[in-house]
Amino acid sequence: MHALLRELFPLGRSLTGEGVRATLRRINEVVPLEIREVPTGTLVFDWTVPDEWTVTEAFIEDAAGRRVVDLRDHTLHLVGYSVPVDTTMTLAELQPHLHSLPEQPDLIPYRTSYYAPSWGFCLTDRARQSLRDGQYRVVIRSRLAPGSLTLAQHLHRGATDEEVLVFAHDCHPSLANDNLSGLVVATMLASFLRGRETRYSYRFVFAPATIGSISWLALHPEGLHRIRHGLVLSLLGGGGAFHYKQSRHGDRPVDRAAWHVLQSGFTGSRLLEFLPWGYDERQFCSPGIDLPMGRLTRTPNGEFPEYHTSADNPDFVPAEQLAEAWLACLRIFEVLEADRRYVNLAPYGEPQLGRRGLYRTTGGHQDIPERQLALLWVLNQSDGTKSLLDITGRAGLPFQLVARAAADLEAAGLLRPADADAHSTPLRSVGDE
Amino acid sequence: MHALLRELFPLGRSLTGEGVRATLRRINEVVPLEIREVPTGTLVFDWTVPDEWTVTEAFIEDAAGRRVVDLRDHTLHLVGYSVPVDTTMTLAELQPHLHSLPEQPDLIPYRTSYYAPSWGFCLTDRARQSLRDGQYRVVIRSRLAPGSLTLAQHLHRGATDEEVLVFAHDCHPSLANDNLSGLVVATMLASFLRGRETRYSYRFVFAPATIGSISWLALHPEGLHRIRHGLVLSLLGGGGAFHYKQSRHGDRPVDRAAWHVLQSGFTGSRLLEFLPWGYDERQFCSPGIDLPMGRLTRTPNGEFPEYHTSADNPDFVPAEQLAEAWLACLRIFEVLEADRRYVNLAPYGEPQLGRRGLYRTTGGHQDIPERQLALLWVLNQSDGTKSLLDITGRAGLPFQLVARAAADLEAAGLLRPADADAHSTPLRSVGDE
Amino acid sequence: MHALLRELFPLGRSLTGEGVRATLRRINEVVPLEIREVPTGTLVFDWTVPDEWTVTEAFIEDAAGRRVVDLRDHTLHLVGYSVPVDTTMTLAELQPHLHSLPEQPDLIPYRTSYYAPSWGFCLTDRARQSLRDGQYRVVIRSRLAPGSLTLAQHLHRGATDEEVLVFAHDCHPSLANDNLSGLVVATMLASFLRGRETRYSYRFVFAPATIGSISWLALHPEGLHRIRHGLVLSLLGGGGAFHYKQSRHGDRPVDRAAWHVLQSGFTGSRLLEFLPWGYDERQFCSPGIDLPMGRLTRTPNGEFPEYHTSADNPDFVPAEQLAEAWLACLRIFEVLEADRRYVNLAPYGEPQLGRRGLYRTTGGHQDIPERQLALLWVLNQSDGTKSLLDITGRAGLPFQLVARAAADLEAAGLLRPADADAHSTPLRSVGDE
Repeated sequence: MHALLRELFPLGRSLTGEGVRATLRRINEVVPLEIREVPTGTLVFDWTVPDEWTVTEAFIEDAAGRRVVDLRDHTLHLVGYSVPVDTTMTLAELQPHLHSLPEQPDLIPYRTSYYAPSWGFCLTDRARQSLRDGQYRVVIRSRLAPGSLTLAQHLHRGATDEEVLVFAHDCHPSLANDNLSGLVVATMLASFLRGRETRYSYRFVFAPATIGSISWLALHPEGLHRIRHGLVLSLLGGGGAFHYKQSRHGDRPVDRAAWHVLQSGFTGSRLLEFLPWGYDERQFCSPGIDLPMGRLTRTPNGEFPEYHTSADNPDFVPAEQLAEAWLACLRIFEVLEADRRYVNLAPYGEPQLGRRGLYRTTGGHQDIPERQLALLWVLNQSDGTKSLLDITGRAGLPFQLVARAAADLEAAGLLRPADADAHSTPLRSVGDE
Repeated sequence: MHALLRELFPLGRSLTGEGVRATLRRINEVVPLEIREVPTGTLVFDWTVPDEWTVTEAFIEDAAGRRVVDLRDHTLHLVGYSVPVDTTMTLAELQPHLHSLPEQPDLIPYRTSYYAPSWGFCLTDRARQSLRDGQYRVVIRSRLAPGSLTLAQHLHRGATDEEVLVFAHDCHPSLANDNLSGLVVATMLASFLRGRETRYSYRFVFAPATIGSISWLALHPEGLHRIRHGLVLSLLGGGGAFHYKQSRHGDRPVDRAAWHVLQSGFTGSRLLEFLPWGYDERQFCSPGIDLPMGRLTRTPNGEFPEYHTSADNPDFVPAEQLAEAWLACLRIFEVLEADRRYVNLAPYGEPQLGRRGLYRTTGGHQDIPERQLALLWVLNQSDGTKSLLDITGRAGLPFQLVARAAADLEAAGLLRPADADAHSTPLRSVGDE
Repeated sequence: MHALLRELFPLGRSLTGEGVRATLRRINEVVPLEIREVPTGTLVFDWTVPDEWTVTEAFIEDAAGRRVVDLRDHTLHLVGYSVPVDTTMTLAELQPHLHSLPEQPDLIPYRTSYYAPSWGFCLTDRARQSLRDGQYRVVIRSRLAPGSLTLAQHLHRGATDEEVLVFAHDCHPSLANDNLSGLVVATMLASFLRGRETRYSYRFVFAPATIGSISWLALHPEGLHRIRHGLVLSLLGGGGAFHYKQSRHGDRPVDRAAWHVLQSGFTGSRLLEFLPWGYDERQFCSPGIDLPMGRLTRTPNGEFPEYHTSADNPDFVPAEQLAEAWLACLRIFEVLEADRRYVNLAPYGEPQLGRRGLYRTTGGHQDIPERQLALLWVLNQSDGTKSLLDITGRAGLPFQLVARAAADLEAAGLLRPADADAHSTPLRSVGDE
């Protein structure tokens, strides 16, 4: 994953254009992507797909002809969607177009101006302070012209057409944590699932932030009702414990599955309540869409100093952190796969587990093994209204134990899924020694 | 307000009679009152309006002809509703008719005997202890005879006939905090609203405690269904932080509005759960009436040593405390006026706020201004089921900010009130720089 | 109670057989029992009534002909339901059939093997360690043959046929706390109720654990719908505070009644959430039965070192603890008897309590007596949806005070039961000075 991230890092991504397409071509070599180009001017809900932005060159030259800022040095140097410029101006005239971080004088900030025609350069504050009075030539050879916005998706088909949606935004230029980390983890999850049997279908969507998720939602209305659970992936490196942000309602299965996995298996994980600010969960959780989508990050946006600066580079995203994030997602999928409601087929008193080999044969012991307690909890609570996650929460037992108890009871003919026709082929895949 | 309070202080109020009428005549000079006289004997729910009580003179004279207690000195000296007496008795015979406070030897207590024919005098314990054995002449020239009980109300008409009810009891004699403080604050709120446009109509009712509120409820059944919110006002001076007592259900809009205003703007405010003991909220919150009426006081009844004694005089109720109480009420009204449910008219994804001038045009910042966050919260939650107070609670933002966000979004055509026909003309009036 | 317990202690109880029958015959001398014999092979839900087990002799003899273990010494020496044996074997061959407690070397453990054909002996670890290598003769003269399982019940008829169910298991051999304590307390409760008028009928059921309660449930389906509240009684001696285990739903009237009684009157009482492990509440609270049955114990099963050992003897169950448990149960019954929903017949404002002698006649006091507050709470909350237990919880007053307030208000014609036809004859019986 880290190698793929390093490969993708230098590509000049933006809302639209060749940087995104090059990124998706590379991912397509790992898992096949279905690409859709949405033409400029397409109405998507309250928005309009903007012109495509192409930039070939952008620099600021001092009077001596020395390039003091040059897009070739770093993709963050140019404000995203800057309009074309070729002019000469004084430093004072130039200043309003410069962005730097006085408190982090060696970092280049990341700025965009997608929806207001404007231009600007981002540079380190140290470089900015070293600029002398005088005339500067400013050149931005960009083009804003009809084109298209690129959406990509990969579908893993499971036993049912009920879907788990995974979304990662792909519009940020050379920022590793935000969001190459989400892109490569999602890609490797998709790759892992290929050829594996699952109960749910898994849809992976890569698109630009905001306008991309809005476009995808607007153009796929017929499929939204199939989405049962979803995760927005971003900021999966950069250090810090996992932060799971709840969906709009806060109590959906994905919320409980994710939090059970994180708090029981990933030390220090934190739970965040829904907030209509952040990444594309804002769109998936808007009132008219209202999907059960949570968000998995490590330290959230805006809460670490490298956020949206040139310090968010591949070294900031260690390979182990990506691997751990990939594992956490897979564990969440496993819980979602196994979670369901069951009906106890012998609900009058307890069934006799002993003659089915599910219970010790001597009586009188002081305690009960956790595994037998899980069997009793599943039997007691399975009246068709409680899911295994509900039972896990009430019993205070690990989900895996509860799910295995349910499987054993189903095999013994004592339990059936409450949604009768569904057959369960749970994802059981990794690290289950 | 304090001048009015001082003016009203000496008037000899009781359940019925001239003291109450004189009080109402004076208030009528500030805001016009509609007066209703309820004749003795009228059945009001489980009660009967009692005889009117008039007293012209009341004193105790010692053997030397010296008046040791005289109603002319203080209206508290006579037990309210004392029957006529003209007799001579020993000190021992007199003692059961005397009320004093041994632990507060310089204060005169306040006592009544409205519904059991009886008589008595209240005096300082110091005065009582100085009484020598001997004969005393006791004279009470009172009259209990058919008459009437006086109810007063003032209605401020708003854009709708949905009402906010404000109640203050007016039967206590020379006690400043209990309840001239409530009376003058209510009067000045009524005065302030005159000529101002409001969404709600505001009804101010002044009546004797218990029998007065019961009479008013019994005689105005047709109007009760219009009452949306209500406040009982009492004990608004006397020091101590505000105490808001919840309505019977505890979660009505007035409960949440009042508590939001108090805890966010008035340091030290305390929230009290409903209790069927206190002032006239007992009647408004009885199970057959069950109005959403809370109560605003400072230190509650019975919890300060001056309660129901001669120490509850105008000096105990500083003008600043009255002004602050008036402001707190007005703030509560403002929240009630602005609070409503909205429907997001662009609920699919977020609407593009930038092109409407409601969002900054550059992207990539670390944080989001509170004002923009309020816009996002209102949009996200406005599915017609959540009120602005609900959103305020979930977002943890000030109500004013949320209400302004809703107004801006409504002006931008992105929001409409959920109760479609209603038009909002929120009270925006004081201290809104 | 303690004398009865000592008398019952030596009887060799098991799932079936003469020990249980002898126990029930003795109880029948105190309260009349209805006995039902359920034949071997009867299908009861998922279970089958097992063969009846009879044992006449069981011992282990060493090579010198010395009996090193003999059932005549202690009923715990033989594993319950051991099959017949008459053989000679080496110590090494014998060891897998021996049960002892190395950490409690002087205690004999209690073990059974009801549903898997097997045999074994229980002995102190000290005795076991003293066994020398050599040949041992093992004799178990037992018989597993068609017979029956014995169920017993006693019904106290109250004013209604709504029932309170009390269950105690009777299958454990010489163990005093588990469960002679439950048996004798239940017996004495039944005895106390005879000839007393109650609102509920009280059904006492004594049966073997698990198979007994399952049999009773399977064979009395027509009566289950009449059960309104229930208690499983066990471990009522042995020291430690009371532990009340909630029913499956956790919020049933019996749960609230029991906890109110215990936390307000029995210091140190603890509340346990439902768990599908323990005693026969497991069967009563299975999803298809789902009765509102809680469980009263002192220290729960498995949490004290004497549990299921020979140290659980009559000395372990002091008479005072049995008496206190009996009183706690009776207090719970009293709350259940008195708890009901009422309708305030004067719900508009407060009724005038003074003229009914329910309220002091002078006004102006600083505080209100608890008894008057209880009257006001009952009036305020009695809209037909809140029970006296609900009101008790909200008011924070003792249940007895609230119930007496309701009785006074009903007598004054201000209240009627919400379930109109029911007439209340509350159990008022013991210690109500």
